[in-house]
Amino acid sequence: MTTTPRIWKAALLVIGDEILSGRTQDKNIAQVASWLGVQGIRLAEVRVVADDTAAIVEAVNALRARNDYLFTTGGIGPTHDDITVDAVAEALGVEVVIHPEARAILERYYETRGGLNEARLRMARVPDGAELIPNRMSGAPGIQIGNVFLMAGVPSITAGMLDALTGALEGGLPLLSQTVGSWAAESEVADLLRETERAHDGCVIGSYPFFREGKVGANFVVRSVDAAKLEDCCEALVIGLRALGREAVPGGV
Amino acid sequence: MTTTPRIWKAALLVIGDEILSGRTQDKNIAQVASWLGVQGIRLAEVRVVADDTAAIVEAVNALRARNDYLFTTGGIGPTHDDITVDAVAEALGVEVVIHPEARAILERYYETRGGLNEARLRMARVPDGAELIPNRMSGAPGIQIGNVFLMAGVPSITAGMLDALTGALEGGLPLLSQTVGSWAAESEVADLLRETERAHDGCVIGSYPFFREGKVGANFVVRSVDAAKLEDCCEALVIGLRALGREAVPGGV
Repeated sequence: MTTTPRIWKAALLVIGDEILSGRTQDKNIAQVASWLGVQGIRLAEVRVVADDTAAIVEAVNALRARNDYLFTTGGIGPTHDDITVDAVAEALGVEVVIHPEARAILERYYETRGGLNEARLRMARVPDGAELIPNRMSGAPGIQIGNVFLMAGVPSITAGMLDALTGALEGGLPLLSQTVGSWAAESEVADLLRETERAHDGCVIGSYPFFREGKVGANFVVRSVDAAKLEDCCEALVIGLRALGREAVPGGV
Repeated sequence: MTTTPRIWKAALLVIGDEILSGRTQDKNIAQVASWLGVQGIRLAEVRVVADDTAAIVEAVNALRARNDYLFTTGGIGPTHDDITVDAVAEALGVEVVIHPEARAILERYYETRGGLNEARLRMARVPDGAELIPNRMSGAPGIQIGNVFLMAGVPSITAGMLDALTGALEGGLPLLSQTVGSWAAESEVADLLRETERAHDGCVIGSYPFFREGKVGANFVVRSVDAAKLEDCCEALVIGLRALGREAVPGGV
């Protein structure tokens, strides 16, 4: 008897005018996606919204309801445009309170940095009932409430918070992947890709074309939670490519 | 009498397992955002979904209804995982047809590249009623139907399609921005930022902290569609920072 392994799903909500204006190149999507993969959690969807309460509330409620976990990045700093805590509290229908441990952390952190002023104290505000996510980079902690995880927007600080959560969330089997590369144009091997995927249940093949050194080619990424199936599918793909007179480079080109 | 200028809004839907797996760092959000800004169109929201018909259909219908324009990137190539055209047609309730001009473009393009096979012909499929977006990079065109614009996922090809659309879409006043930088910690000038924004109607101030050369600092980005208001707000911010004994660097640090 085989049972289908449970798939754990997460969504990411990126909050910030700076991403939507094009000023800042987002780096958190790829970082969170890779980290989730290692935890055995699938990143199912991402949204980017402005520093706008209504937009954040709508996205939080849509995404937390249909995913096991919701992560947010951005908007938890000390300035007027940092409205994530208030918006998430509104979405959850809870009050915003000062978290005593967060306050203590900030008092220690700012003791030698000019003291805890009103703006800095904003970073101790959390939706009522929340726990803290340690931040070893810059004092102000991240926040967990229910299945919602509020993290900083600055990628190096986000990374530290993800690190603090490593191994702490329940997940399933990690999604494994292997790449087979070829200098073939993907449009010349499209049938092979479709048929190989169809013949290998539990495997998905993505085709990622490129144009490099004056030649077209593609990397074919096979994904599965089952290492043996993944191996079989990649082997079939390599054999299939070579049968078509195409080279096949395990690991990708 | 003053009238509030109409704001033109767009959404971007990024389609692709490779973004959600963390394999590929998205570059289209920033590129599309910057391009839209020049067209006088505000990027209001972004979603990233998997190569999954139901997810694409849901996002297309949500986003096209509440924005003036919807752009998609990814999933319009020749392989089995390229399902954007079918999903958008489903969302719009129209058939998928072969576009004769797209077919002719592909015939010419592949004449010296092995000919037009079945997989390549997939790239001539469009939702019924669509027009083409020229692609000077690689043959296969983008697709416009109603207020939905389907573009390639490979950033250099996306760029060529955006270029072809430059000046072709109705927009409003472009959102202007100016940056004032300071080596002040944002938490030390948070009150000034809030008050300056409040005193300058039509301007929004974003605060983007950084840690560099062992010191904290922040860039304050002021945005407005009105050049004179933008100028006034920046000037007030510079004066305010200096009154607090902080340096202020027009243009940012």
